[in-house]
Amino acid sequence: MLLEAIYHRPKHNWAYAYDRETLHLRIRTKKGDIDAVKAVVGDKYAWEGTVNKVPMRLFISDMLFDYWEVAVKPPYRRLRYSFQLEKGRKKLWMTEKGFVTKLPDNADTFFDFPFINPIDVFQPPAWVKEAVFYQIFPERFANGDPSISPEAVEPWGGEPTPFNFFGGDLQGVMDHLDYLTDLGVNAIYFTPLFEATTNHKYDTEDYLKVDPHFGTNEKLKELVDECHRRGIRVLLDAVFNHAGKTFPPFIDALENGATSKYADWFHVREWPLRVENGIPTYDTFSFQPIMPKLNTENAEVKDYLLKVAKYWIEEIGIDGWRLDVANEVDHHFWREFRQTVKRVNPDAYILGEIWHDSLMWLDGDQFDAVMNYPFTNAVLDYMAYGTLDGLQFSQAIGAQLAAYSQQVGETAFNLLDSHDTPRLLTLCGGDERRMKLATLFQFTFPGTPCIYYGDEIGMSGGNDPECRQCMVWDKNAQNSDLLSFYRTIIALRKENPALRSMDIRFMHAAAKDAAIVYERRCTEGDRFVIAINAGERTRKLAVPSANGAWSDVFTGESVRIKDKLLSLNLAPYSFTILRQSVNRAGRT
Amino acid sequence: MLLEAIYHRPKHNWAYAYDRETLHLRIRTKKGDIDAVKAVVGDKYAWEGTVNKVPMRLFISDMLFDYWEVAVKPPYRRLRYSFQLEKGRKKLWMTEKGFVTKLPDNADTFFDFPFINPIDVFQPPAWVKEAVFYQIFPERFANGDPSISPEAVEPWGGEPTPFNFFGGDLQGVMDHLDYLTDLGVNAIYFTPLFEATTNHKYDTEDYLKVDPHFGTNEKLKELVDECHRRGIRVLLDAVFNHAGKTFPPFIDALENGATSKYADWFHVREWPLRVENGIPTYDTFSFQPIMPKLNTENAEVKDYLLKVAKYWIEEIGIDGWRLDVANEVDHHFWREFRQTVKRVNPDAYILGEIWHDSLMWLDGDQFDAVMNYPFTNAVLDYMAYGTLDGLQFSQAIGAQLAAYSQQVGETAFNLLDSHDTPRLLTLCGGDERRMKLATLFQFTFPGTPCIYYGDEIGMSGGNDPECRQCMVWDKNAQNSDLLSFYRTIIALRKENPALRSMDIRFMHAAAKDAAIVYERRCTEGDRFVIAINAGERTRKLAVPSANGAWSDVFTGESVRIKDKLLSLNLAPYSFTILRQSVNRAGRT
Repeated sequence: MLLEAIYHRPKHNWAYAYDRETLHLRIRTKKGDIDAVKAVVGDKYAWEGTVNKVPMRLFISDMLFDYWEVAVKPPYRRLRYSFQLEKGRKKLWMTEKGFVTKLPDNADTFFDFPFINPIDVFQPPAWVKEAVFYQIFPERFANGDPSISPEAVEPWGGEPTPFNFFGGDLQGVMDHLDYLTDLGVNAIYFTPLFEATTNHKYDTEDYLKVDPHFGTNEKLKELVDECHRRGIRVLLDAVFNHAGKTFPPFIDALENGATSKYADWFHVREWPLRVENGIPTYDTFSFQPIMPKLNTENAEVKDYLLKVAKYWIEEIGIDGWRLDVANEVDHHFWREFRQTVKRVNPDAYILGEIWHDSLMWLDGDQFDAVMNYPFTNAVLDYMAYGTLDGLQFSQAIGAQLAAYSQQVGETAFNLLDSHDTPRLLTLCGGDERRMKLATLFQFTFPGTPCIYYGDEIGMSGGNDPECRQCMVWDKNAQNSDLLSFYRTIIALRKENPALRSMDIRFMHAAAKDAAIVYERRCTEGDRFVIAINAGERTRKLAVPSANGAWSDVFTGESVRIKDKLLSLNLAPYSFTILRQSVNRAGRT
Repeated sequence: MLLEAIYHRPKHNWAYAYDRETLHLRIRTKKGDIDAVKAVVGDKYAWEGTVNKVPMRLFISDMLFDYWEVAVKPPYRRLRYSFQLEKGRKKLWMTEKGFVTKLPDNADTFFDFPFINPIDVFQPPAWVKEAVFYQIFPERFANGDPSISPEAVEPWGGEPTPFNFFGGDLQGVMDHLDYLTDLGVNAIYFTPLFEATTNHKYDTEDYLKVDPHFGTNEKLKELVDECHRRGIRVLLDAVFNHAGKTFPPFIDALENGATSKYADWFHVREWPLRVENGIPTYDTFSFQPIMPKLNTENAEVKDYLLKVAKYWIEEIGIDGWRLDVANEVDHHFWREFRQTVKRVNPDAYILGEIWHDSLMWLDGDQFDAVMNYPFTNAVLDYMAYGTLDGLQFSQAIGAQLAAYSQQVGETAFNLLDSHDTPRLLTLCGGDERRMKLATLFQFTFPGTPCIYYGDEIGMSGGNDPECRQCMVWDKNAQNSDLLSFYRTIIALRKENPALRSMDIRFMHAAAKDAAIVYERRCTEGDRFVIAINAGERTRKLAVPSANGAWSDVFTGESVRIKDKLLSLNLAPYSFTILRQSVNRAGRT
């Protein structure tokens, strides 16, 4: 047994409460090294009467490691535990004190999960597991009220620059809710709506006011109400890391310097506020002078922003917040933010923008989820760029599932592009086949998929400003085949819990092979086998599978199982989704 | 390079802010496997102009791993980083996305420390690094006012049972402050002082009142004031996990059942409150019916306990809290507790009772330190029981230093026994030589040493109630040699910053060898070499050392260095402390 590979440390993704009764324990071992792992568990105050050995299942692997997991329900909410590692006839125990070759008589040296306190249990809102998000960049979705468009508005469909305007507004969104309903989305994430000078509105001037070029607070309330009537949730963008250059406190600090009553609202290295050699004398987002970083440790700033967080939920009825540049704001602020938000709406969704490892924000005290760019990257590397083979892709996915608790996986915000990246079709080199494969995986994977507006009708474009083009509403200019694919795949996901469940198993994933096959199932509902060929060569595969009746979801054809082998013939950049009906009595 | 052994994950002990300007980065590799590690660091928004490679130092090892560390001061408080691993002519980089054989051109795939927000920086009170604690179990320290002793008081020095009383009180402590000052301690940790029925007072009846058998709130204030005049800090025991059976809200819940207005103050599985087959129908400490667990999620309970936390600091002037059974209380409560306490006294010390891995409480948002029982165990295993050899001991110490941030090590509460364990002398089988070795290590190690009352005069005793005997005040019955040793070693620690610094290096630690030699130094002040032989055979050692003048701290004899070898001759269970004076110009 390679001891150096074995890892466990209490809490986080290794030992955590899944709900108020259940603990999940996990351990990592070298890939293929260990035959079996059991958890030795019991109550610390009644060890002899409660000690028990429970087998762990190998739940996922990555490039180097196997990850084992077991769920335990400790009767008194307390758990001492160690791990029994088995290889051939060899046994070894991992305790908190290290590895021992004999199971200790008592649990003094064992790991400890002291008590499941309900308030510490991470429980993201249940609706998020069922959500299909649609991201709208409001200035570019639809111009429904030309009377409020900016003076310099350009004709819809023109070329976007970093600075121009096309007049998209809330009425425009209202006008197209039928489109969204038809598509099947049930949640909208809006990039910023509050008054600001730019077209992206990430330089907030007034956090309590909808930008007049988008509409009014009343108009937003009307829109939110209409969305709710249709079963669509609404998420707004909270830009709390920094304000804009026209934010009145910043203007005051600029004008009055260190004597400004807002002097402590910002992170100032040197007064007066100025830019020297391209570097502001105050902290900003990146080095952008127009985006001064807010001092979220200052009590007035905190009160102000928390008032903002509450206002839009209480008064306007939004269903949660996406948090811009969330990882540059202090943890203390986010903890208070969560408490404030959940107090006014326990079901509100808190989604942080973090592109990197996000463990420290996903422990139940801060965010419900983060924008899952590591997922994005793995999918793009495999399906869009072809730089990962099937095995490497399955390992990248495994590493992500192992890195967080189950509830994080269940509500991860899985996007493939956004206003901050080139569009998916462009990332796929314009190849719709690759785009479909990426989207298929996104919609048959646990977590919350999000579509960037217009992807579904074939819009393309590189980095900002190209990815922020006006939505194409002319049906003749829309890619109807792609749109139909999106509708189908969204409906399939919504109808089948197996496609949203955490139970994913790679049935085929091999080195230097662009094809993968994975199984999706859940305790109730149909079972699926999904095959993807992300390569340019046809792949014929025979994958071991239990007998039963399988049918192709798209063609309706039934599929033969011969000698317990499922035969698949995959054209380049193609996919097959097979479904097996499960009747009430059990599996067919 | 053994990739499976290499570990890093952002935050916690791996990437953390040491102060408002400095980040510490650490990485783990297989022991002896890697020749050198460099951190590749830079600002994410100005990568090309800021990227830099900084060598990391191998700062400690344990049984399986080497741990590398480097301190970095990012100019704009943001850091992207990866690790360059070198073995012979081979180079490999560890990024957040995995291992790569070519250093990427940009930092997209690197690890990210987004921003050093001052409020998130873990800064325990500075005084704790200089503290020498003395733990007092008040019922057994000194009876200074017999008029307030319990009715059933027994003569001082009698045999303790779980239930009897000897009349120790606050006046008794007051009477012996000179003794403590002479000993050299500068901080007292009292086990509970509040009104309760037992002799240990862990079953609180009134959290706002000193137990009448100990004195009054005014008497405590008088004692705290006198302590402060002498430069002694005072820590009280907060028993917030559970109350006592005479706690009025519990009595009310007992009497009125589910309709009690205090019904939600406890964790009730079934009404009415009762005990069935030895198991209470409500959660308790262990299964003890007289210690009902408090529902710290209930707003009233929280308000009440936070009022208590504030009262003793604001009104009585105590310097901090030791938190009983701290890990069974929810994290949310402790975060509010810290904010409440630090608001009334930023220098207050928050010490949790946790016997196990405590990472989740030591990130700066909850405790300043925990009772470091893993340290206790390592020292006892090596010095008291002889179950670890010198190498294993050095590895156990290494594992502990690597497991937490530097500031945790600097203020770890290092005890060797307490009211919850047998006394140190008893743990050492009555062997004073072993006891001295353990104490010597405790007082020449980073962190905060704590003496359990009476250890210093040779008191012995097994588990509770034996370890809770009356303090021996008869000088003829005190072990004066031991007392003198304690005074010397305390003074030595207080006078020499090197003995408190984090800079510890094992110069000798070998398998099947009971002797260790370690070096202690700091940037300013004398340097020490300490040799310990925890075995029954004489050990002659020649340890490589730079030339210079060394003298034995206890005998004053100067020690020869020959051929850059320091010769040591260690009798069984003996020690030597060598000092090298460092003059102002630098090292001698």
